[in-house]
Formats: sequence, structure tokens, C-alpha cells
Amino acid sequence: MHIELKRGSSTKLYMQIALTLADRIRSGLIEPGTRLPSVRKMTANLGVSLVTVTKAYAELEAIQLIRCSQGKGCYVAGIEPSTQINRTGQEDLAHRISNSDSGGSLNWQMTLVDYLPRAQLWRHFDASPQVRYELHMSAIQPELLPTRDIIDSAYHLSSDHAERMAAYGSFQGDWELRQTFATHFASRGLQVTPERMLITSGAQQGIDLVARTFIGPGDVVYMEAPTYTGAIDVFTSRGAKIITVPMDNEGMRIDLLTRLCDTYPPKLIYTIPTYHNPTGITMSARRRAQLLNIAQSYHCLILEDDPFADLYFRDPPPTSIKSMDSAGHVVYIKSFSKVLSPGCRVACAIADGSVLTRLVAAKSTADLGSPLLTQKALQAYIHNQYDTYVYQLREELYSRLCAASDVLEQHATRDMQWRLPEGGLNLWLEFQGNMDIHELHRQSLAAGVSFLPGSACYVAESDTSSLRICFTVTSSEALKQGLRILCTVIDKVSSQQAGATADRLPLI
Amino acid sequence: MHIELKRGSSTKLYMQIALTLADRIRSGLIEPGTRLPSVRKMTANLGVSLVTVTKAYAELEAIQLIRCSQGKGCYVAGIEPSTQINRTGQEDLAHRISNSDSGGSLNWQMTLVDYLPRAQLWRHFDASPQVRYELHMSAIQPELLPTRDIIDSAYHLSSDHAERMAAYGSFQGDWELRQTFATHFASRGLQVTPERMLITSGAQQGIDLVARTFIGPGDVVYMEAPTYTGAIDVFTSRGAKIITVPMDNEGMRIDLLTRLCDTYPPKLIYTIPTYHNPTGITMSARRRAQLLNIAQSYHCLILEDDPFADLYFRDPPPTSIKSMDSAGHVVYIKSFSKVLSPGCRVACAIADGSVLTRLVAAKSTADLGSPLLTQKALQAYIHNQYDTYVYQLREELYSRLCAASDVLEQHATRDMQWRLPEGGLNLWLEFQGNMDIHELHRQSLAAGVSFLPGSACYVAESDTSSLRICFTVTSSEALKQGLRILCTVIDKVSSQQAGATADRLPLI
Repeated sequence: MHIELKRGSSTKLYMQIALTLADRIRSGLIEPGTRLPSVRKMTANLGVSLVTVTKAYAELEAIQLIRCSQGKGCYVAGIEPSTQINRTGQEDLAHRISNSDSGGSLNWQMTLVDYLPRAQLWRHFDASPQVRYELHMSAIQPELLPTRDIIDSAYHLSSDHAERMAAYGSFQGDWELRQTFATHFASRGLQVTPERMLITSGAQQGIDLVARTFIGPGDVVYMEAPTYTGAIDVFTSRGAKIITVPMDNEGMRIDLLTRLCDTYPPKLIYTIPTYHNPTGITMSARRRAQLLNIAQSYHCLILEDDPFADLYFRDPPPTSIKSMDSAGHVVYIKSFSKVLSPGCRVACAIADGSVLTRLVAAKSTADLGSPLLTQKALQAYIHNQYDTYVYQLREELYSRLCAASDVLEQHATRDMQWRLPEGGLNLWLEFQGNMDIHELHRQSLAAGVSFLPGSACYVAESDTSSLRICFTVTSSEALKQGLRILCTVIDKVSSQQAGATADRLPLI
Repeated sequence: MHIELKRGSSTKLYMQIALTLADRIRSGLIEPGTRLPSVRKMTANLGVSLVTVTKAYAELEAIQLIRCSQGKGCYVAGIEPSTQINRTGQEDLAHRISNSDSGGSLNWQMTLVDYLPRAQLWRHFDASPQVRYELHMSAIQPELLPTRDIIDSAYHLSSDHAERMAAYGSFQGDWELRQTFATHFASRGLQVTPERMLITSGAQQGIDLVARTFIGPGDVVYMEAPTYTGAIDVFTSRGAKIITVPMDNEGMRIDLLTRLCDTYPPKLIYTIPTYHNPTGITMSARRRAQLLNIAQSYHCLILEDDPFADLYFRDPPPTSIKSMDSAGHVVYIKSFSKVLSPGCRVACAIADGSVLTRLVAAKSTADLGSPLLTQKALQAYIHNQYDTYVYQLREELYSRLCAASDVLEQHATRDMQWRLPEGGLNLWLEFQGNMDIHELHRQSLAAGVSFLPGSACYVAESDTSSLRICFTVTSSEALKQGLRILCTVIDKVSSQQAGATADRLPLI
């Protein structure tokens, strides 16, 4: 079990351990009944003293989050979800803690119940300094992005209209930007007026607005398995009942979805139909139509997350589900952050009828509207230069994929499987055998290469042995070198595991 | 009852009315048991035909949101909160609606349950074109803001570092900006390191992050009455049990708060201690210390919202509650949007221990971090020019207050009461008699002057006759002219009401 410790912090180490474990237990990441690692094992894992771990466990036992007994070890108590925690008891305990001399003055916070599962805690860790090949983040190498041009555009445009930048923008987003988006989408088979759009601070905010507006405790949300980590976080934090649907070459298995919907009618279906994150799979036009059909018959929403549609390598992808939607079932979210400027955080959501109205209201409650400056910055660029830029970008990204493919063909171990995506940024690697991805991750980071463990893309802990690398985030040379190192580490970990398994084989 | 109708829309008028009423009923804005206006009255109010209103009510009755009976009128049905609505029934009805020929294909959305109370629906209305004196919005006149300088700073800084703008920023916010804020706060008596800060997209997002992290259904949140509309929206949408505490000249009545806390222990206390919105009152240093004491003894959080502290007219305000907080009870949020650039949406939240960690996690789930470009834009400006700028700004804002005061001294009616704030942007007017604020609002808008009806600043519908104007959002001349017109309208509405009351007096 990994726990990030800050050695120089004013919070003592044992309290850092206790706080982290308390968070994970309350958020459900560590389930009731789970046996915690023994004190000795934890001590070895974290490189701290026995006393430190013992004190941390004692604190957790004192606030009844775990139960320990001699010889049996410590188990997570069968607590209710965070909202149901007995407040009075908690307060007594908080009092006890803050009045004890065992820790710092912040200790009362340990009993402060919150509503935010931090299932994806790894996201908040800083990258280790020894990682030279960062393949874990799904992004485009900064040198390929038109940042200089975007800043120039914003500057020259705004020189004449400085006061406009000063005003609160419209909750719904800059009108000119929405007009530009309308032209953009029309050229891609999606006819949409600026009135039907909402500008959000990145796709992440768009997903969040949909979730906070339409999803509450127990509402059924379908997602592909695996899927985008950030969307899992958002729906989990709303208390949704998330049901995941396996994929094949054509995308989400609609046959399975249909059967599941019989039993659990959907409130929302979340999908990344084009160059899916993390698998790279594209949903066929036939499946897209079927999915819309399901939404119509269940009167539910589809959240179509579409960051990669412009990044095809050969032929454009099938048109969006939204383009077929005549009755306002689809909320379509197109991020421009990844392709143009992650720092700018601009995405466009398209919705209809009262679904749109309610999302605009949600946006006003969330932040009163996105910054005008960034909207204007992107508007001019998209209007004048986007198409030319993205044409060249596609060529460049494709060459990176080819480079990655060459290295894998040459160095991959026998149990590695992958399929080359027809667009996008991600490459999904699966292992046929029983690869210990966490051990691989540890050794890979130590060797200077980061990747995203596949488990981060699943709602529940998954046995799937898989990982995602991004082939567009580094230079071509760094990509090749990083992949070569990764293959070497994979080979090494495979052999170690084979050895370990052999060791454990009974002698018969 | 006001309903915003879009005449050119593809959604028929009756359906617009039905959808709006359904929203308000589901959100609790119109409570169960409320009698809706009669069809005739609604017809006259909205300027639509009898048939239109009749059809709208019929739709609402069909989905069981209201019950109508001959002679008695239509009443809001005693439905459960939105989460408890019978889904199966809703689905049947949705089916009925979408298969009927009574409306467009979007009608199924009417049965789509959501979780977002839109209590402050008025916020989404566009200002009427006839309003020439917009005194309703709390902001600084764009001509006074340093927008040109901020854009210049951003441009020149980023010329050398275009690639940095392209990267995803830190979830917690730009390090340089946080360092600049540290210096800023230190000069105001608040010692804080960049590690303790989180950059948010405006104070609105800061409040939202705190609420989504720590507040859930039934959690007790205390607020001043009246208070900031946007905060009411956020806590309401989390299902909080909101308890409001009256104010006097020293701010929130701590004596009342203490007694209330005995019965309802707080999870969070939200306060705007300095130049409070909307009343302009400043909490005394004594009360600030008392409030912190309460938080310590109840192990609860204080959310200190502090947008106006730099805008004092004579002496600086008492130091912030956060500056006295040694045990991480206070989340301090300082917006720079209002003072520097509403379009830029940058605020700084300061918190400690695991409260900070959890807020950073919430920020990552919300939007993966604020745009770098706007952060950089403000950083350079705040570092180099902020203090000089704000010094001049204070002078200018104070002259506006004096102008407003002059007009009120000369033209106010006898039953108007106000107190001049010692800083900030807002002036709160109260009426001793029974002023019908909604009628005043209508007539005032027709005469070209907007204000914020006081009821928008209360959690529940309030009988308080009050309104807020902002004395800094227009030019000095426009402010004076607008206020003169407002006083005339107040005089007129007062007389009409006196007349109406006299008419209704029984003849004895």
C-alpha cells in the first residue's frame, strides 16, 4: 500500500499515515472488512519506524475506523457511508484527539467527514524527479502546440477591446467563440447554433456540470470499461450507481448494455466513442445509432465526450452521436484544451431544451462563467488557423504512433498485446499472463519511465493487467527510448514473477 | 409570478411555462401546497392567451406536479424532494408526453429529474434593453479597472515562455502567483506560505469546492441573514440545512449563533466579515475572535469570504479571521476578480492540513486546474502595480459613495433607511413600512433603473422590505441620475400602496 509521506512537514509522520488511511476508508477506497497490512509490512513499505505505524493504527482504532486484535491484525470496521457517520460520536472523538497531546493542533480535522472520494489519489502525486520519460499523461508535446500564435491573437484582438475583457462574461460563454465553434462543428457534420452551446472550463468541468445537475445518489450511470479516470471520479463523487460495459472492436458492447438496462434503467450513459481513452477504440456508426435508440426508449441522457475527433490518422471518424440526436438526449462535450492549449481550459458543451438551460444554471453556480481572456484567445486562433494547424498535427502524431509501433514490434515481450488506434493520443497495452502492474509501475518509475496503470481506468479494483501510454507527449526520440526501457523492465518483472511463481509451486 | 418567455423559440409557449413551473416546483422554490396564480391572472401577467396557460397547467397536472379542481384552483402537489420522485411513474409519464402530439420532441425532458435548485432564477435573465442605470450588479465600473495593463503584462511575460502556457498547470495553481499572493497577504497581517494556497476560478468556485467537499444533505451551515446570493445557491444545492443569523452593527449576532449551535451543532459557518455583501457591515475584531472560538469548540469550519478587504475608505478593516487561526478551522477565500478583472476569474483559497489537501483534490475533479494564461496575466500585475492601483481606486470608490449619499440625503423618502459602509461596493436600503419590493422592482426597471431585490439575499422568502444597489458599477453621473429616478419611483409606489391600503380599510 503506497502512502505519500512528506518528511519535512509539520504534521507528524504517524498522523500523515493515519489521515491518509482515514481518507481512503471513508471514501470507500478501502472497503469494510479489508485487512490492513501488518505493522511490520507497513513499516518496511513506507520506510518508517514500527512505533510510527503502531501509533497511526492506534489513532484509527481510537476513532473506530479500524478494529485490531492480537494475532488477527487490523480490519476496516463496517462503517456506514460517510454521510451516515454518527456525528455525536465523531465529535467526542475529535475532542479527545484535539485535547490529547499525541499530535498537532490540526488533528481535529481527522474526524471532519467529507463527501469526496479520492479514489484516484495517485493523480495528486508529483512526478518523481528521476522520471525522464513521462508517458503517463495523455497530452500533446508542448513544442507541437500553437501557444505563441494563440497568445499573439489574444493580444492583438484585445488591444482594441480591453474593457470587454474586464466585464463579467456571459454565463453561457463568449458569443463570438460560440459562433466560431458553430462553423467548426458544421464542417464536421454537426449542425448547431451558438444558442445551443455552453462554454466550460475544459471537458472536465463539462462532465462535472452534467453530473451535478442530473446525477444523484443511486442514479444509474453506464460507462465503458475501462474509461476516463476523471469521469469515474466525478460520477463516483455524486454517489451514482456506476455500471460498466465491456468493449470490443466496435466500442461499447451494446448487446450487453441492452440487457443490463432491462434490469437497471439508465439515467445517463457516458461514452467516449472516438479514439476512446484509454483503449483507442472507435465506436462504429451502427453502434452509435443503437446507443441513441436506447437513450430514446429509456428517456435518458447520453454524455458524449469527444476530445480526439480531429486527430484521425487516415479517414475521419463516424459522425458524432449528437449529429443524429433530434430529441435532445445527447450532451456533447468537445474539449479544445488537449489539441490547442491545456493551459487555456476551454471546451464546448452542446445540449438542447431544458437540459441546456439547466446546465447554464449549473455553470453560473459553479463559477459565474469562464474567463473571457482565454475564450477570446482561442476564438481568433480557431477562426483563422485551426484547420491548417490540425492538418499538420495529424501527420506529426501519426509519425509518433509509427515510431511507437516499431519499438513494440521489436522489443515487446510475448504476452503483450496492443492494437494501433486510428487516431488520438493513447496506446493501451494488455498482458495475457498475470503481470503485477503495481510492481511493474514501481520498477518502471525507478528506471525513469512513467505510464498509467490500467487499474486507474476502472471503477472497481480490477484484475486486468494493462497499462496506458501516451505516444504524443514527448519527442519522438524520447518516446522510442522510453518504450525500449519499458519493454526491458516488463521482461525483467515477468521473469521475476515466473521465478516467484515457480518458487511457490508445491513439490508434487 | 414572472416567467421568462422566448417568443421566437421552437419550444411552444405553453411548454415553456410548464417547464419553468416544473423546475421551480421540483427545486422547492414553489413549495407543496402553494396555490398557483389563477389562469386569468397568469394570462394577464405573461401576456399570453388563456389557452396557453390552460395547456401549461394541464401538462403539470398530467405529471402530477399540481392538482387542480373546479372553483378551488391549482395547488402544488405534496411531492417528495427530487431524489425521491417515483422514477417508474415519471418514466411512464415521460413516455406519455413524448408519444402525445401535444408538443415538440423535447418534451420528455420535462420529466428529467435534476438536483439543481434554481432558486435564483432571476440571475439568468438578460437585462431589459430599457435599463439605462444598472445598479443591480456588484462590480466596479470597467473604465476604472486596469485591464489594458493586465493584458500587456501577460503578453510580455508570455513572449518568452509560450510553452509554459501550453502545459497543464498545477491543480493547486501557478507557484509564482501563489508566491505573489503570499507577499500580498503578509502586508495585510496574514502570514501564509504558497503551500497553503489553492488558486480557484473566482470566489464562486472556491465556495463551491468547499461545499462539495464538506457539505452534504442535512449538514448544518450557518450564514448571515441577508448574505451573498451565490453562496446560498451553492449550499442549497448540496442539500445543507441552512440556518441564518441576524446581524447588527458589529456583524453576525454571535450571541444568537451560540444559542443556535447548542441545538444544531455547525458543520460550517459561512461569513463575509468585511464590508459584508449586501449590507456593507464590518464584523468587529471581538466578534471575529468569538467566531473562531465557536469553530474551535465545535470542531467545525469557517468559510471566510473576503472580496472587499482592500477597498476601505478610511482605515483598514480588522485583520482576517484566518490570521488568528492556528488549528486549520478557517478556509479563507480572497477574490481578485472584482477588484482587478471580473473576466479573469482568479481567486485564492487558503486552508490548512487535510482540509487543503481535500480541496485540491476537489479542484482536480472540478476542472483539473485554472487556466495558466489568466493566472500569469494577474501575477505580473499584482506583483508590480496592484498596491498603487488599489490606492487610487479607493479614492475613486469613496467619491462614488459620497455622491450616492448626497442624492439619498436629498431625495430619499421618509421610510427609507441606510448606513454608509466603510468600504466595498454595496449600499443596502431598507424600508420601515410595507414596501412591495416586487412591484417597486417592476416599475423601477420600467423607469430604466435596476437594483437587487433584498429577497434574493435571503435563504427563504423574506418579508423584509429591502434592496441593494451598487454605487461603483456606473459612472458617477449615471449613479446620481439612477438614484434620483429610483427615489422618484419609490415615492410613487409608496403613494400607490398607501392609496390601495386606504381603499381596503373597512368602513367603521
